Order: sequence, then structure tokens, then C-alpha cells
Amino acid sequence: MDIKELLAKVKNNEIDTDEAEKLLKKLPYEDMGFAKIDHHRKFRQGHSEVIYCEGKKKEHLAEIFKALARENKRVLGTRASEEQYLYVREQIPDICYDESTRLITYIKEDIPCIGNIAVCAAGTSDMPVAEEAAQTAEFFGSGVTRVYDIGIAGIHRLFANIDIINQASCIIAVAGMEGALPGIIAGLTDKPVIAVPTSVGYGSNFGGLSALLTMLNSCANGVTVVNIDNGYGAAYTADVINKLINGKEQR
Amino acid sequence: MDIKELLAKVKNNEIDTDEAEKLLKKLPYEDMGFAKIDHHRKFRQGHSEVIYCEGKKKEHLAEIFKALARENKRVLGTRASEEQYLYVREQIPDICYDESTRLITYIKEDIPCIGNIAVCAAGTSDMPVAEEAAQTAEFFGSGVTRVYDIGIAGIHRLFANIDIINQASCIIAVAGMEGALPGIIAGLTDKPVIAVPTSVGYGSNFGGLSALLTMLNSCANGVTVVNIDNGYGAAYTADVINKLINGKEQR
Amino acid sequence: MDIKELLAKVKNNEIDTDEAEKLLKKLPYEDMGFAKIDHHRKFRQGHSEVIYCEGKKKEHLAEIFKALARENKRVLGTRASEEQYLYVREQIPDICYDESTRLITYIKEDIPCIGNIAVCAAGTSDMPVAEEAAQTAEFFGSGVTRVYDIGIAGIHRLFANIDIINQASCIIAVAGMEGALPGIIAGLTDKPVIAVPTSVGYGSNFGGLSALLTMLNSCANGVTVVNIDNGYGAAYTADVINKLINGKEQR
Amino acid sequence: MDIKELLAKVKNNEIDTDEAEKLLKKLPYEDMGFAKIDHHRKFRQGHSEVIYCEGKKKEHLAEIFKALARENKRVLGTRASEEQYLYVREQIPDICYDESTRLITYIKEDIPCIGNIAVCAAGTSDMPVAEEAAQTAEFFGSGVTRVYDIGIAGIHRLFANIDIINQASCIIAVAGMEGALPGIIAGLTDKPVIAVPTSVGYGSNFGGLSALLTMLNSCANGVTVVNIDNGYGAAYTADVINKLINGKEQR
Amino acid sequence: MDIKELLAKVKNNEIDTDEAEKLLKKLPYEDMGFAKIDHHRKFRQGHSEVIYCEGKKKEHLAEIFKALARENKRVLGTRASEEQYLYVREQIPDICYDESTRLITYIKEDIPCIGNIAVCAAGTSDMPVAEEAAQTAEFFGSGVTRVYDIGIAGIHRLFANIDIINQASCIIAVAGMEGALPGIIAGLTDKPVIAVPTSVGYGSNFGGLSALLTMLNSCANGVTVVNIDNGYGAAYTADVINKLINGKEQR
Amino acid sequence: MDIKELLAKVKNNEIDTDEAEKLLKKLPYEDMGFAKIDHHRKFRQGHSEVIYCEGKKKEHLAEIFKALARENKRVLGTRASEEQYLYVREQIPDICYDESTRLITYIKEDIPCIGNIAVCAAGTSDMPVAEEAAQTAEFFGSGVTRVYDIGIAGIHRLFANIDIINQASCIIAVAGMEGALPGIIAGLTDKPVIAVPTSVGYGSNFGGLSALLTMLNSCANGVTVVNIDNGYGAAYTADVINKLINGKEQR
Amino acid sequence: MDIKELLAKVKNNEIDTDEAEKLLKKLPYEDMGFAKIDHHRKFRQGHSEVIYCEGKKKEHLAEIFKALARENKRVLGTRASEEQYLYVREQIPDICYDESTRLITYIKEDIPCIGNIAVCAAGTSDMPVAEEAAQTAEFFGSGVTRVYDIGIAGIHRLFANIDIINQASCIIAVAGMEGALPGIIAGLTDKPVIAVPTSVGYGSNFGGLSALLTMLNSCANGVTVVNIDNGYGAAYTADVINKLINGKEQR
Amino acid sequence: MDIKELLAKVKNNEIDTDEAEKLLKKLPYEDMGFAKIDHHRKFRQGHSEVIYCEGKKKEHLAEIFKALARENKRVLGTRASEEQYLYVREQIPDICYDESTRLITYIKEDIPCIGNIAVCAAGTSDMPVAEEAAQTAEFFGSGVTRVYDIGIAGIHRLFANIDIINQASCIIAVAGMEGALPGIIAGLTDKPVIAVPTSVGYGSNFGGLSALLTMLNSCANGVTVVNIDNGYGAAYTADVINKLINGKEQR
Repeated sequence: MDIKELLAKVKNNEIDTDEAEKLLKKLPYEDMGFAKIDHHRKFRQGHSEVIYCEGKKKEHLAEIFKALARENKRVLGTRASEEQYLYVREQIPDICYDESTRLITYIKEDIPCIGNIAVCAAGTSDMPVAEEAAQTAEFFGSGVTRVYDIGIAGIHRLFANIDIINQASCIIAVAGMEGALPGIIAGLTDKPVIAVPTSVGYGSNFGGLSALLTMLNSCANGVTVVNIDNGYGAAYTADVINKLINGKEQR
Repeated sequence: MDIKELLAKVKNNEIDTDEAEKLLKKLPYEDMGFAKIDHHRKFRQGHSEVIYCEGKKKEHLAEIFKALARENKRVLGTRASEEQYLYVREQIPDICYDESTRLITYIKEDIPCIGNIAVCAAGTSDMPVAEEAAQTAEFFGSGVTRVYDIGIAGIHRLFANIDIINQASCIIAVAGMEGALPGIIAGLTDKPVIAVPTSVGYGSNFGGLSALLTMLNSCANGVTVVNIDNGYGAAYTADVINKLINGKEQR
Repeated sequence: MDIKELLAKVKNNEIDTDEAEKLLKKLPYEDMGFAKIDHHRKFRQGHSEVIYCEGKKKEHLAEIFKALARENKRVLGTRASEEQYLYVREQIPDICYDESTRLITYIKEDIPCIGNIAVCAAGTSDMPVAEEAAQTAEFFGSGVTRVYDIGIAGIHRLFANIDIINQASCIIAVAGMEGALPGIIAGLTDKPVIAVPTSVGYGSNFGGLSALLTMLNSCANGVTVVNIDNGYGAAYTADVINKLINGKEQR
Repeated sequence: MDIKELLAKVKNNEIDTDEAEKLLKKLPYEDMGFAKIDHHRKFRQGHSEVIYCEGKKKEHLAEIFKALARENKRVLGTRASEEQYLYVREQIPDICYDESTRLITYIKEDIPCIGNIAVCAAGTSDMPVAEEAAQTAEFFGSGVTRVYDIGIAGIHRLFANIDIINQASCIIAVAGMEGALPGIIAGLTDKPVIAVPTSVGYGSNFGGLSALLTMLNSCANGVTVVNIDNGYGAAYTADVINKLINGKEQR
Repeated sequence: MDIKELLAKVKNNEIDTDEAEKLLKKLPYEDMGFAKIDHHRKFRQGHSEVIYCEGKKKEHLAEIFKALARENKRVLGTRASEEQYLYVREQIPDICYDESTRLITYIKEDIPCIGNIAVCAAGTSDMPVAEEAAQTAEFFGSGVTRVYDIGIAGIHRLFANIDIINQASCIIAVAGMEGALPGIIAGLTDKPVIAVPTSVGYGSNFGGLSALLTMLNSCANGVTVVNIDNGYGAAYTADVINKLINGKEQR
Repeated sequence: MDIKELLAKVKNNEIDTDEAEKLLKKLPYEDMGFAKIDHHRKFRQGHSEVIYCEGKKKEHLAEIFKALARENKRVLGTRASEEQYLYVREQIPDICYDESTRLITYIKEDIPCIGNIAVCAAGTSDMPVAEEAAQTAEFFGSGVTRVYDIGIAGIHRLFANIDIINQASCIIAVAGMEGALPGIIAGLTDKPVIAVPTSVGYGSNFGGLSALLTMLNSCANGVTVVNIDNGYGAAYTADVINKLINGKEQR
Repeated sequence: MDIKELLAKVKNNEIDTDEAEKLLKKLPYEDMGFAKIDHHRKFRQGHSEVIYCEGKKKEHLAEIFKALARENKRVLGTRASEEQYLYVREQIPDICYDESTRLITYIKEDIPCIGNIAVCAAGTSDMPVAEEAAQTAEFFGSGVTRVYDIGIAGIHRLFANIDIINQASCIIAVAGMEGALPGIIAGLTDKPVIAVPTSVGYGSNFGGLSALLTMLNSCANGVTVVNIDNGYGAAYTADVINKLINGKEQR
Repeated sequence: MDIKELLAKVKNNEIDTDEAEKLLKKLPYEDMGFAKIDHHRKFRQGHSEVIYCEGKKKEHLAEIFKALARENKRVLGTRASEEQYLYVREQIPDICYDESTRLITYIKEDIPCIGNIAVCAAGTSDMPVAEEAAQTAEFFGSGVTRVYDIGIAGIHRLFANIDIINQASCIIAVAGMEGALPGIIAGLTDKPVIAVPTSVGYGSNFGGLSALLTMLNSCANGVTVVNIDNGYGAAYTADVINKLINGKEQR
């Protein structure tokens, strides 16, 4: 029920003004006391609410997961511990867990893949973050091409794969240590590049700060950046762009 | 015995000057060697001394707790480990412990609740800090209204609750990650907002620094800030303000 | 016109639903193209919009000032340069400027002073920030007691003034360098203390970071903190608290 | 001449192998001694080389500008000083300069505007950066909708404009101080949001670091970030996305 | 009049209790409104109050200087600008100014030099800070031996002077850039070494942070550190130690 | 097969142009799906690919190790955990592991030692990093002279060894805490000094940042720096320089 | 044998010039391969070499301990783990270990206590660092007065003890969190104050950085600072000063 | 006169032991009071002392320059201001000044160029630092090949020049912003690469910190790093390596 419908009902005396006032203020969400599930987000943003699991009590997490599973055919949980997964699985046996990316997935209905996102990773140590991005994008229904281990220490490996990368609608470039990969790719493509710094490295890497600053300061055009290790966030934006380009309605 | 009384006694030769000089320097505290219990604080500031438990030896902690429990009907310990709690409980069986907030409480006498503090939290992961604030305020005798999971990713949840928030005398707003919640609330209220950054998040969150800086730089008026994860500190100040507004004598 | 009224009009066909929908979305503000004046804020928050002048074009600033002066009897501009002031004065001759605090004031109507805020400063070098706080609080209609030069290098000066400070409803404590003053005052009072770090100092002061961290980490209870050099922000919150305590309606 | 053509010529003996080897290594650029103009980039990335003027000698800048103006009908210079502009203008009288955004433009041929990018700014002090983004996007041929002064201190101003913002293909959100605007917009839209932190603010703003961290840590989905004050970079990526969505060939 | 005397007077009815209470709270200082001169400090700490001039209004500075000059035969002002000096000199013609150290001195009575402080500097660029230390120590009445330009790039210069350095009671070691000098000296002496980092250097020197961290992390024993460029502070402590060792009463 | 050969084949119709185009883009590497082994690097840079083990799955690591062991007689793995080593050893029994340096070595053929690299360490706590450097250099075939425990707290120990150090072609200087050793050595030698900061220390050492900044700011000439704890990186460069000086062909 | 003696022997042909040259370069130390014991330091600096245990292999540590125990009647080890202690004790049964300060002591001969160092601590959580300082000073032979739990939250506890503190030759002031204690004490004494920041606290304490900056920026005179948690370093310097003042020969 | 000679003289009674002791301690330097000229360094390190001009008084600078010019045929001053240059030129008319690199050179005797150092720069804005490196290396007598404007935004420009770069004995790679150039070059060469971060850039560049961290974290082998903007330091080390490789005696 949108605002216009509501106002029409008020006009037609189908609803009284007190009730209308309340409804106007409340977009649909489900109040669980400790959490407020935002069922409406799917309509507002085209994606269902994804659960950030880290730091949540396992009992709360299970309740939230069940509430979303009731209303959705596909639910995603990020940064889940194995302990959280095992607890939730007792109540929703159909969920899956990937140890390396720490993603929990609940999939009751397959959806067709649309378009193509290239997920590039500089080194094999960056793979957990790259896979978080790739699997998230696939969960949302975007096609994914993985191109891993093309870091700048052996830059010919990147050049051998640049045509494959350029066929995507959008590129996710994941790198730790010095973090130069996204800038190099951006200099060789005409597609948007979403850079993901990882905390891989040591010493003055400072938990990914080094790669983050490199990416923010890239002198190549077309690079935007997400938080350190945030493969999920990169995949979300890449999915939005990929679907807009390939003509799919978001909702 | 206050200074005037003391001077009167000196005048009347009821006390000699050497003794008086000593007394003048010493406000009442109890010296335990390793610690000096400040029984006087309750009179100076209107709250009994709360024990910051982190880093204290469990033997010392138990001694301090017993000394305060002798003189007070209500004692609070913050940042206590379960191990510390178990040790102290052997000597003071009436204490309670909350695992999530890490508060130890010793309550021999209930006190009536006064006024109303709204404790708001952006996400469910911020709940331990929010609960530390809420339970501390309740311990001190302030009424508390909890409004959780109203972060800006689904901002309509905040708007649906803003009237409840505005009924409080003082607002505590707890948020991690980007930490924008306090600023948004401050733009919608005429009450003081105490912002508590949490260390919830990852990557360039840098242990809560991100949320802390956001709150300090808020362009909305009426926001003041406490240390990262310092739910206790926010509750203390909120309790002071709440009681001043609602006319209760502090002491 | 509030929501209820509006809905009543819809019900009574005094307004059509399209119009109502538009009105529901728009709270009153004035669109000047480059800026949107928020006349409504006075009603929402109990203070008129204060203009943050830094970085604004002088032509834009003058337009904003005139728009606010049309609707208000008292307007405040913060962080104004002398050049900005001189330009605005050509169009609104009645404004005043204080070089040290960089405040522009436009006052067409005096208002009675309510309550008492103590503005404390550690050193004479902190005076510009302390005065920004004091004059802002006075502009909003709060009574102010100034207690300057009571820093911890000669702590007896603080003790000689502590009774005066304790008579206030709310305390603003301004300090640079090591920034210890607010914590000391908080240990001696039962009133809320708003700490303002200043950028006074050198070397590892790092533009006020040293004092900011000191204040955030204060082990005394009752301290909340605002941004470095933000005397205005401290005064805003102090004014809110002072008026709530002294029973004045905010609006 | 592309690689295939070249190999064909080798096969047909139209070119000898030594010559071919050399050509294979050199993509077209113009060597001016102190600089190597990358005429090829337009074909590789779909945009002509934009000149980053800051720190360049004015004599060098003029030479580079002339070299690009010979080969292109539209040239852009960013972060130019007035002194640089005046010097270059002596040699290329047709250039224009915008003092606030510090952009130099040379436009010999108008191009039609395609699609729609929403450029949002939190405050009037953020306008120079927002305008750098808006004018850059227009230079590249994207349509632009400006929505300024919608910061979170008066959040109803944002809500009144959210429908206009949602009509764009891509959103640029510019904010200083606490930098919360992009996250709020991202929670209300299904379009990609490119966040630009600005160095507007003071104290613990630390030259834009505060806003940068806020944006990187946004808990709303769909936000990617560029460097502090980098309106140009945001516009470049927004233009790429806008044109991909609106079906225009990049080249 | 000390506390004992005062109490005796109370006892003897020479003073009434109200008056006594007031006196007990007030150690002698002179209240100038904007500043509170601490004449008592000389007796409490053995040095007259030194004026930190930076950031003070020249009118205020002159008033403070005159108040101290009335009560003292020797007054020192640090971090004074030439403009401040010229203004103060109009009212106290007998003051001197040293442009490089920015010290103002007012000396009505010479005092004999006691003991020996070695002031060492790594490079000639560190001389302004070293001289601030040396001249301050001389002002307080300590003998000073200057040993400059003995930095570690040519470490034999240090060895050639180590015997001279070891004759002092206390050593001040001033260094910028890498700041290794104090640690090296400490490894070669049995006297306390006060390290002063300077902001001399560039790049990752970060305004003296590099030298500061080096000195704090010195693995040689006997090094303590003062703030960046704080020659005055080092001299104060060195003077205290020097006089304690050489048996002079501080007061 | 190099470019010239390839072009000759094209000319002679031994290969068709489509095939040639493909080959031109691909320098030899082995694609294992999750990793791309760069067998070519040995020829391009004169060293075989060394495996950075940290963060790699043990299954992946074993595959990579086997692929390299097939093509090389000497393979090195850095930052390996004992768990990784044990897993790889099951498949390649001939590897060795050093617990303190965390190096895995696979050596099927001894090579003669060339030249001389001096590896100096300030304290015994810096030995793991120094040994990583020494053993890496030896693995690559450079002669190594170890000079440990010559830190500046007892600088005569350095002087007693300076002649031995000066006989090397290149010097690696490893130090934690204040990190002054490389600068001191550089002032006493005419050989290049590669400085390695270590994370040894506490407090404001900040994980090696203190030593890193010291080394970058060294006022002695001839110091270049690698990342914190990066003994491997220092050895790689030292080996390159040592072999260039001692006339050995890199390849 | 000092230089003069040696030269005399050369003159008298008791030693040949080659031998003399070697001796001139080598001050006495014992080379154990992995470490060079500096027996000479005791004579150069008046204290025997203290062993920094952290990060040392237990086998190496035991060797070093035995070498020092052979030549000295008193040996100190700092930052030792219990595991290290147990291993060393197998070989030197007479050593003692204090779990809280992590000091290992080997004492074969008691020495008389000289002078008086006041060791002050702000809170009970700062006690491990304060005790490291106190026990180290006692090990070196200085008298120690402990004054604990006098932090600024209840500042009257400090005032009640200030006379005791002022009787010392030198004051060590240990504080975490905001770290204001040393500055306050310095304002009330005429003795040198050595400030030790501790890593006690949380949030924006940043591992002791907050207290460190406070102490470096103290506006009170007479404060010098050592590294975070470095109780040992403070005690070393305090011992040097205490003995110089109380006339004891260092050697 | 070296140590052996000296000892021989002692033996032969040509010099008495007191005199010999003094001489043994003093390597030759010239004491000018404010500075100690290290004429000996040329023999110890193979380069004459270069003057770091920044922060030196112009009078001092001129004295130092004259002292060096008396003893040397070639003198170099770095980071000189134009004002310093003009002052020194009055006394030594033969010096030259380069405004962009801020180098002062005094050359009385040409020396032949030896070997080849490649100085690479990413952008034209990095040229002042690159030129400081190139001109310093030439001053010392190394041959220099300049390769500018080969940054990664158009990476084909680097590939077209890689053969020229590989012919050098040693490579200096200068880059600001993201600073990726040195790592890319290192992946394509078998020569040592000295990386120089520049402060070119804006926003989160933080004065060159971004490029510095990138270079320290480079995952390519063979990169060592000098301080931000330190072209001089890079040239010094490159010259040492170049001459060692090309067989020239350093002295």
C-alpha cells in the first residue's frame, strides 16, 4: 500500500485519520524486540536484507534467520562463525556454509544468472575475500568470471587475461600488500573497477591500510573503493551496476 | 565533619592544631595499601564509587568489593571477567553478573526509578555496549527506554520510533561502523544526545576510530561524545542530566 | 499544519490527495538553489539555524544571512572571516563581529537570561575557544559564569574557584596541551561537564589530538567531549541542558 | 593499425620483422621529452587524457595542453591555478576557467548529453567539490542533476528530494565533516552511490579523514568511495556507469 | 602565612573561622580577570612562573609581564613573536629578545651559575631548540656547556667530545631526523640524558614524530623524553636535577 | 621462443597469424586454476619464484610447491607455519623447515657461494629476522657473514666488528626498538646498507613503526629500507647487488 | 687496562704495535656467537647489563644469564615469561621470579639502600608497571616509597600524600587512561618527575598512546617521559638521579 | 696519519703518550664553533660532505660552504632556498643553483662519468624529485639515463622503455599518488630498484604516506625505499652501487 492509495482510503473514509497517521510513519518491518527486520528493503533497494553475523548472539541470529527465511526464498549471512552456522542449522537444516568465505546461504529457489562480473585477485592469499565477492554476486543472480593470481609481480599474467576481464560489465579487483592491481586494470579497461583492499601482508601493511591508501590514490581513472576485506560490499555494488547495464529490473 | 565545624573545634580548643592540620588534608577515604577507597565520593558527586574491574587482580578486586559493600547498599563493577566474578561471589554471594555487558551488581536495596533516558542502538551487534549503558542507568535509578536496531541502513525504523525517543530527558545513541546514528537523532530532537562509538565493524573501522570521528564531526547540534565502547560513561552523564531535569537531589 | 490536520483536510475534501502527498513530504524550508534554509529547525530543535560560515562564498553567505534575518530576530554566524563579515555588513548593517571568536551576531530583540553555565578555561591561550562557547550560550539566552586560567600547573587556582563552578547547571571545560582540566573538574562536581579540546600547544599535541584523547579517556565520571576547538557545539548542548534543568520550554 | 593487421603485413612481407617487433611494443604516444602524451588512451578507455595540472610547470602544462588540443576537440585540465590558466590562455585563447572548481576546459565541439547523474552535496561548503564532479561529468557528455544542501542536520530536505535523486542512473554524494550523507542515500535508493569525502570541517576532521572513514564503513549497501576532494574521479566513474546503462558506446 | 600559623591564629581568636576558611582555600595568586598570576609557584616549585607567549593577545601578555616584573627580578617568556616582544618592550623597556629561540628575558639581578648541564645538538639545524634549552638553563642559574653538530653521520665527532659531556651533572640531547643521538650518548655516560626531539627533517619525519618515537624506544638506559621542540621543558628539568646534585636549595 | 623467432615463423608461414597473436600475449606460465605459476620469472629476474606461504590453504600450497619442484632444483617458501610444512612434507619429503625463520627449503642441487653479504643484527631478539635474511641470501647463492648483537647500547661492540662488516659487498642491518643501527653503520662504511626494521619492542614501538621511521629518516647516507620484519626482501636485493658487483651473471 | 697504560706499554716495548691496535679497538666483552655480553658496561655506566628477555630463545637466555651470573653478584631480567623463568631456573636455581612484573632476579649479595624514590600510581590497574619500577629501583640499591591509587578521580587522595611524595629525591608517576597524574604532581613539587604511561584503558586509549601524549604535552614543568609500560626505564633513570643527589659513586 | 703510524711514533718516542691519546680520539674535523666540518668523511665513505641547507642560518651556511670549498673541488648543497643561494653566492661567486631541485653546486673540476643509473618518474609532477636524484648522481660522477612520465595510467609507455631501463646498473623509481611504479619495474628487471615516494597528490595521500606504504609493501622483489621526496638519498645509494658494479674505487 503506497501513500497515494492510503490517502485515497482516507478520502473515502475507508480508514480513519489516526490509523492513517500511524501507517504513514511505519514502513513495513517486523519488530522482534532485539531487532527490527526490514522486509521492505527488498522493495526499496531490490535486494533482501543480508545478515551481518559477526558479534550477534547465536540465539538472536537464528531468530533473525528464521524470520527472513519465512518471507524470502534466498537469504545470505556474512562473516558467520562455524559455531553460529552449526547453531542456526539446527533450526534451518537447509542452509549451507563456506568455511573460507564465512558465508551462510539459504537457497530455496534458483534464479537465472544475468550479465557478467569479473572478479580479479592479485594473489592466492587474497582468495577468501575474492570468493566472498564472487559467491555474493552469484547469490544475487549475477554471472561471475573469476581471474585469480594476476598480481603485478608477474604482470604478463594480467595481460594474458585482460580480454576476458574486459568482457565483463563491471570489474571487482581484490589485492593486499601494495594493492596496485585495481589501478593497473583501470588503465587497461573502459569498465568501472571496484577495488577491494585486503588485510593480507605484514609490517607496514597495517591491517590493509597500505592497500586501501594505494587504491584511493590511484592515478588511473575509473577506480572506486570499498572497505578493507569487504568482498560483500563490492559484490553488492557490482551486482547493481551489472543489472542496470543488462536491463534487468532491480525489483 | 566539614571545614567549618573543624575550625570551630579548633577555636574552642576541642582539637589541637596539629591534629586539625592533618584532618584538613584528609577527606575520608579508606587506605587498603594497594588501593584507597573513596567513600567520600558519594557525597561529592552523588554516586558511589563504581569499580573498573579490568586488569585488577581478583584478590584485590574482592577486597575492594567487600569494603564498598560494607558501606553501601548498591555497588557496581564494570568490565569484569567471569573469572573475577566467580572469585568475588565466593565472598559476596549476593552479587549478580551479566555475561554480555560484563557488569557485576550488588543490590541490597531497591530504589525508585526517576525520569527517562532513551538508549538507542544502531544494530544488534551494538547491543552489549547499549545494554551496559541501559543497565548502568537503571542501577543509578534512572528510568530507561530501549530502542534498538534503528540504524541508518533502514532509516524508516528510526522515524517510526522518534516520538518515543523524544519523550526522554536525555538520549544515549550507540553505533559502530560509520556511526551516523547520533547525528541523525540530534537533527530530529531537542534533547541532549550522548554518542557512544562502538568497536563493531572491520577494516578501516580501526577499532571504533571511524565511528568516533564521525560523532565528533557531526554537523548536527547537540551531540557530545564518550570513549569507544564506553556505555558506562554515557550512562553516568545521562543519569546526572536526567536527575537534574527531573528535580531529584543528586545526593 | 501538522499531519493530523492535513489528514483531516484530506478527509473533508479540502485538499486533494496529490497535493497532500506533496505536502507530506515537504517540511518547511526555503530553497535558494545553492542552499536550502531550514526555517523549520527552530520548531524542531528549539534553536534557529546557526550559519557555519567557513568555506562559504561571501555572496552566498550574505543571501543566507538575509533570508534568516527576515524570519528571525536573532541570527548567529560562526567561524566567519573578517572579509565575510565586512561583505555581509554592507547588506545587513546591524550585525556585530568579534574578531577573536569569529562570531557574527544579528540581534534585534533581547531575551532574558536563564540559568547558569560555567565556562572554564585552562590557560589564557584557550580564551578564543572559551569565549566562542560563552558568547554562543549567551546568544541562546543562557546565563554564563566565566572562570579562566585555572589550569593544572597551579591547581590551587581551580580549588579556589570550585564553589563558583559548582553553582552552575552545566559546566564547559576548555583546555589545550595535555587537556586534563575537564577530568579534574568532573572529579569535584556533580554537574555534567562538557569538555572542549583546543589546538593550543605544539609538538606531539598534533593539532589538539593530545587533548582530545585525554578527555575521551578521562577516568573521572561525567565527562562528554566535543570536537577540537568546537566551542560553539559545547555551548549548544550546554544551553539545551541548562534550559531543561531550569524549566524553560525549548521552543 | 592493430596487431592482426601488423601480423598480416609481416606475413606478406610488407614490413620486416625488426620493424614489426618495434611497432608491437609501441602503442601510440607522443614523446615531448618531459612528458609522454597518451593519445591512445581515448581509444583504450573511451575518454581523452585529462591533465592533472597541480605541480606542473606552467611551460610544461602549456605544451601538453597544445599537444592534446591538436588531436582532440575537447580537453580538460583539473586542479589548475589561476596563474597556470592565464599562462596557457596566452597560447590557447579559447580555454575557459572556473575559479571555484579550478577546471580549465577547451571545447571546440559540443556533444549531446546522455543519461542522468545526480550530484548531491551535504552543505554549501562542499559545493566546490560537487561542482568539480558535476562539470566534469557534463564535459564527458553525461546529463547532470544537482541536489545541494541536503545534509543530515535537516534530513527532511533529503527526503523531499529523494525521488529526483532516484531518477538518475548513478548518484554522486559529496560530504565533509561527518560524511554520513552517502550512506543515508544508499539506504533509500537502488542505484550505485559514489561517495566523495571532502576536507571541509575542522578539529578531528583531520583533512577529510573523518568523512572518508565514515563512507568506507557505511553499513548501507551500494556505496563505493573515491579519494578526499576527488570530485573528478567520482565523475569519471559515474560517467562510465551512466553511459554503459544508457547504451552509449564508450568509444 | 602557612596552615599552621593560620590555625594558631584561629585558636588565639586573631582571625575568625569564616575568614580562615576562605584563606585556607586560597593560596596567593593575583587575579587579573583574564589571567591568574601564580606568585606562589616560586615558593612551591623554586622557579618563577615562566610565560608561554604563543597565542596570547599582546595586550594580555604585557599585563602579565608587568605583574610578574613587579614581583620578580628575573622573568622569562617563551615562544614569543617579534610583534609581541615589540609591544611588551614599549611598557617594559629593559627586556631582551632572541629571534632564533624566541625567548624574552627580563633580568634585573644577575645570579651566580651553579653546576654544569651539557646541551648537545646533532646538527646545526637543531640549534634553535638547543639554544632555547641552553639559554633557559642559564636564565635559571645553571652552568651550561654547549656541544653542537655531533650527530651520528660522523660519529667520531661525538667520541672526541664525550669526556666533556661526561663532566656535566645532566645532559640534554637535541636531535631531529632519525633522533638517534640521545640513545648513543646514554650508552656512553652515567648521567641522566633528557632527549629533545626536533621537527627538523622532511617526508616521513612527520613534524618530529620520527625522532620522538626513536627516543622513546631507545634501548640504551637512562633516556627520558620531552615534547617535540620543547627545549624549555628539557632545561627546566635539567636545572632541577643539576641543582639537587650540586646542593643548592631550590627555593 | 622469443618475439623475433615468432615473427620469423609468421613470415615463413610456419605459424598462422591468429596463433601468433595469441602467443604474443602469453608469456609462459602454468595455470593451476587457483594459481598461475610464473616459470618465466627465473629468466626475467634471475631468481625462481619464491612462495609466500602465509594465508595460503595447505592444499594449494602443496600443489604450488610440487609444480615448482618439478621445474626447479631449488625452491624456497617463506612465512610458512609448521602445519603447512608438515602437510607439504607428506608430498615432498625432501624439504626442510626452520622453525625460527619459518623458511621451507627444497634443495636438490648445491650451488657455489659468491661474494659476501654482511648480515648485522642489533640484538638477540632480532635474530629470527636476521636469520631469515641470512638463510635466504645463502639459498640464492651469496656468501654471508653474520655479525649479531652489536646494537648501540654498547657501541664499542660495533666498532670492534666494523672491519669485518666493511669487507662485504653489501650490508643488511636489522634492528628493532629505536632502529638506529643501520644509520650508524652507514656512517662508517662505503657499501650500500639495506635496513630492516623489526617489530621487536613494546609501547610506542607500534609494531615496528618506530624503527621504520628512524631508518627512513636516517641522516647518514647510503641507507635504503624494506618493510618491517622483511628479512627475505632485504636478502633478495642484497643478493642482486652482491652478484652484480662480483660479476656473476644473474641468469 | 686503560688507553694510557696501553700506550705506556707500547712505548716500553712491552707490547707490539699490531697487538696494541687490536686492543685499542676492543673494549672488554664476551662473544658467545649469538650474543656479545657487555661486562664493561658496569664500569662505563655504573649498572650491570640487565637482560631484556622478551623474544629471546630460552636456551640463549639461559646462556646469557649464566655468563652474567659468573661475573656479577646481582643480575636482573625484565619481561620474562614464566616458561623462560622455569627453564633458566633449572640451571641457576637461586633466581626468583615475580609473576606480575615479570622480573627475574638473581641476588647473591645484598646492598644497602640509598636515598628515596617515590613511585606513584594512579590506579590499581597500573600496579604491575609501578611495581616493575619499584622493584627495579630497589634491585639497583635505591630506597623506594610506594604511593598507589591516587589518581585524579579522587584528587584529595593525592593531596593527602603530597608531603610524603615531596620527601623523595626523584618521583616516578605511573598512569594509564588519561594519564594526568604526572602533570598534577609536577605542579605540586620541586623534584624531577619521570612519567610512565601505561596501556591500561580501552577504546581511544590506543594501547597507551593517549596517556603518552598527555604526558608529553603536560603544561606543568619538570616532567620527562619514558616509553609506554616502561617501568624499568623510569627506574633506571630515577636511580641515576637519586644516587647523584645522595652522593653515591655510580661505579 | 693512521693508527699504525701513530703507534709506531709512540714506540719510537717521536710523540708522547698524552699527545697520542688525544690524537687517537680525534679523527680530522674542523671545528667552527656552531658546526664541525667532517673533512674525513670523503676518505671514510668516498663522498665529500654534502650540505643539508634547510633550516640553517644563511651566515652559517656560507661559512660551511667556504670551509668545504677550500678543501674540495666539488661541493653540493641540497634543499637550499633561493635566499640562501643568493647570500652564499656573494662569497663564492662560482656556485650554481637549480630552482626546481633546490640544489647548489660548486664545481671546480669535471670528473668522468662512470656506469649508468636509470632515473624513472611516474608523472611530470614528480620531476623535481627525479631531477634532484639525477643531478645528484651526475654530481657524484655516475652516468644517468632519464625516463620520465611512464606511470601506470598508461602502462604501455613503460613497456616501450623497459629495455632502456634494463641497461642500467641500478634503477631509481620516483612516484607519488599511489606509488606503484617501482613495484612494476621491479617485476620486469634483474637490477636493484630504489624507490622514492613523493608528496605529489592530495586527500588521503597524506603528504606521501600513501606512496611510501605502497613501496614498502611491494610484492615484487628487489625494491628498497628511501624517505618521501628524498631524491638525494636515492642517488647517493645508487651511485655507490653503480660504482661498485663498474669497478671504480670509491675513494
